[in-house]
Amino acid sequence: MSRGRLEAFSDGVLAVAITLLALNLAVDGPGHGPLLSQLGRRWPSFLAYLISFFIIGIVWVNHHALVQTLASVDRTLLFLNLAFLLFVVLIPFATATMAQYLTRGGQDAQVAMALYGVVLEGMGGSFAAMFGWMLHRGTTYEALSREARRAIWSRFSVGALAYLVAIAVAFVSAPAALAIIGLVAVYYVVERTPSFAASSSSSAERGDHGQ
Amino acid sequence: MSRGRLEAFSDGVLAVAITLLALNLAVDGPGHGPLLSQLGRRWPSFLAYLISFFIIGIVWVNHHALVQTLASVDRTLLFLNLAFLLFVVLIPFATATMAQYLTRGGQDAQVAMALYGVVLEGMGGSFAAMFGWMLHRGTTYEALSREARRAIWSRFSVGALAYLVAIAVAFVSAPAALAIIGLVAVYYVVERTPSFAASSSSSAERGDHGQ
Amino acid sequence: MSRGRLEAFSDGVLAVAITLLALNLAVDGPGHGPLLSQLGRRWPSFLAYLISFFIIGIVWVNHHALVQTLASVDRTLLFLNLAFLLFVVLIPFATATMAQYLTRGGQDAQVAMALYGVVLEGMGGSFAAMFGWMLHRGTTYEALSREARRAIWSRFSVGALAYLVAIAVAFVSAPAALAIIGLVAVYYVVERTPSFAASSSSSAERGDHGQ
Amino acid sequence: MSRGRLEAFSDGVLAVAITLLALNLAVDGPGHGPLLSQLGRRWPSFLAYLISFFIIGIVWVNHHALVQTLASVDRTLLFLNLAFLLFVVLIPFATATMAQYLTRGGQDAQVAMALYGVVLEGMGGSFAAMFGWMLHRGTTYEALSREARRAIWSRFSVGALAYLVAIAVAFVSAPAALAIIGLVAVYYVVERTPSFAASSSSSAERGDHGQ
Repeated sequence: MSRGRLEAFSDGVLAVAITLLALNLAVDGPGHGPLLSQLGRRWPSFLAYLISFFIIGIVWVNHHALVQTLASVDRTLLFLNLAFLLFVVLIPFATATMAQYLTRGGQDAQVAMALYGVVLEGMGGSFAAMFGWMLHRGTTYEALSREARRAIWSRFSVGALAYLVAIAVAFVSAPAALAIIGLVAVYYVVERTPSFAASSSSSAERGDHGQ
Repeated sequence: MSRGRLEAFSDGVLAVAITLLALNLAVDGPGHGPLLSQLGRRWPSFLAYLISFFIIGIVWVNHHALVQTLASVDRTLLFLNLAFLLFVVLIPFATATMAQYLTRGGQDAQVAMALYGVVLEGMGGSFAAMFGWMLHRGTTYEALSREARRAIWSRFSVGALAYLVAIAVAFVSAPAALAIIGLVAVYYVVERTPSFAASSSSSAERGDHGQ
Repeated sequence: MSRGRLEAFSDGVLAVAITLLALNLAVDGPGHGPLLSQLGRRWPSFLAYLISFFIIGIVWVNHHALVQTLASVDRTLLFLNLAFLLFVVLIPFATATMAQYLTRGGQDAQVAMALYGVVLEGMGGSFAAMFGWMLHRGTTYEALSREARRAIWSRFSVGALAYLVAIAVAFVSAPAALAIIGLVAVYYVVERTPSFAASSSSSAERGDHGQ
Repeated sequence: MSRGRLEAFSDGVLAVAITLLALNLAVDGPGHGPLLSQLGRRWPSFLAYLISFFIIGIVWVNHHALVQTLASVDRTLLFLNLAFLLFVVLIPFATATMAQYLTRGGQDAQVAMALYGVVLEGMGGSFAAMFGWMLHRGTTYEALSREARRAIWSRFSVGALAYLVAIAVAFVSAPAALAIIGLVAVYYVVERTPSFAASSSSSAERGDHGQ
């Protein structure tokens, strides 16, 4: 299995999932009150769209960086990648459900937010499992330095821990949990540990025959 | 027709189909009872999502392996591939219908499960037809050994037979039929006959000019 | 503009459009009568799915063959290709509308079938315009022989004429019009004028740097 | 990050977004009056489809030209590209909302049209920001001449200004605002400043290793 087709399929799934996010924004249409107040009532949907869009976008950037360092693709990695995509595909569903219930309060809002957190945790966890497998099996182009490994693992940990905290916080306050998840997205956009970037640029120089 | 574009189009269809699976998970929303019980009632949809996701994922892996061994693409193969995709595209529909009726019991559950089985059988059958045509016309890079052929055919047979059995069992017990189909998915994830893998890696070494 | 990205984008649109076709098959679900009779009543949707699936599939094969012969892509060709895709994207909508009204009879069935025919005619017409522009501007790798041109034009004419006839026949009998359109699809699957195939295979030998 | 995958992901999102546009055309179906008058009442949806289809199509052409001139892709550019795609994904939603309210008049039509204008302005603005960043960081293959820069910026300005004017006009007359947006689309299809085209063709000659 060449890296190229692994990327092509994953990109396809990520592109469709990110575009389906906007389906949840549709207003009820004429006869359901002034459009401005319909849009106003839907602010959780717009906020949820914004956060989920950047989460999928970041994951796409990181997925690419990870795959770039791959020297070969084995069956285990393929199925870990499928598990990762399984959670990615659930994001539009989890986002829509969370947005629908966010302002309802009570147990429903907690459950909806926890569901959203669990899907993100599952996505992050299977992504980390892919990386762990690559290190374990040595399917990268070159041995990563200790520091690089540590930097990458600590990046993963930020997300994994934050999503766990968000799931717990969801049962106290759903909006607070969403704020945590939103801050994680901002962190990943802003943060610039070179980590993958370094190894990915060097692999690019090598010519990318597999693409 | 280069292999590259055959793969690109098939990957696109497989990626869209696998992502559309999650559309069936949408809950009814506020005003239809507690979210937790709405999600609980939908367990057949989640189970169906899980099984169909891995079925499409496995088929994507196998499709890639098959196409990798292709030396050239003729018109017959193109149309066999279209027939294969015709059934793939039906999977989200068949999955949604099956999940809706699974717990209803009676004739409806039987019909819904049989429909699901027929779509999977059609997908597997047209995939096997592609392989048969490749052997018949010698459009592979190299003659596969007798053992390799036998191993590949017996892998196909497992799915083809199991889906037939599932269709029959559906008329006795829909959940039992689903269990059979789920076990086939687990078998394909776990099983590791080298078969295609071997020839595909050697074709990769040859440089993949057609991609 | 490289041929590669023109193909990638067109393939993406064709893949999404062909997969969306199946959205129209969804049954009403529990509480709307036995599933078997729900499926039975939907035979026009299944037939329409089958025909439209192969129409898009054939067009994908032909689009690839056409693009393969391109030496360069100019702006006019890009916008002719967009016009072509504009009609492709309308096919799921036209298919769904046609299937809903096919068995209703009366003016509605006629209008729905004519709409379907017009969308197909538009798709075929813009595809022919792309080919005409290529010949006019000499943007193909090599001058096609007179016979090859004539063979390709007569292939186009079959579809263009048949769709026009189908639009006219729609106002007498919608099912008869659908039969004509279905026969065109069968013709294109079965028919094997080498035409494009020849030039496309020779361009493949040249190495496909643009892909 | 290679240009190739940036293009692949962006193409995927653009292809899905452009295809989802047609979902808004679905008629209500049998039992909602004659099909012909249902289609007639939906003229704003067909007009909106046509305009949005060409807007996404043009943006795809321009995006490709821009990416072709890239010598390297940095993280800032990746996230500017994500911001650009964020607005692209909103287009089907904004188009559907605008079409639903266009003929309603009053404040609703104004809000719907302004929303459409804001989404287009956001898309154009983030696209211009990508170009500005490229010039600022010198991530293009070669320094563009003063004249080329000026030509490209004035092309951007036409759209950016026209969308701003359309947003303002929306609060006087929604149809007039739509006419302005439609004219911008026609301008971009017809207009032929070489600008990008020149640099993109020269970069194509260089061999496109990154693709």
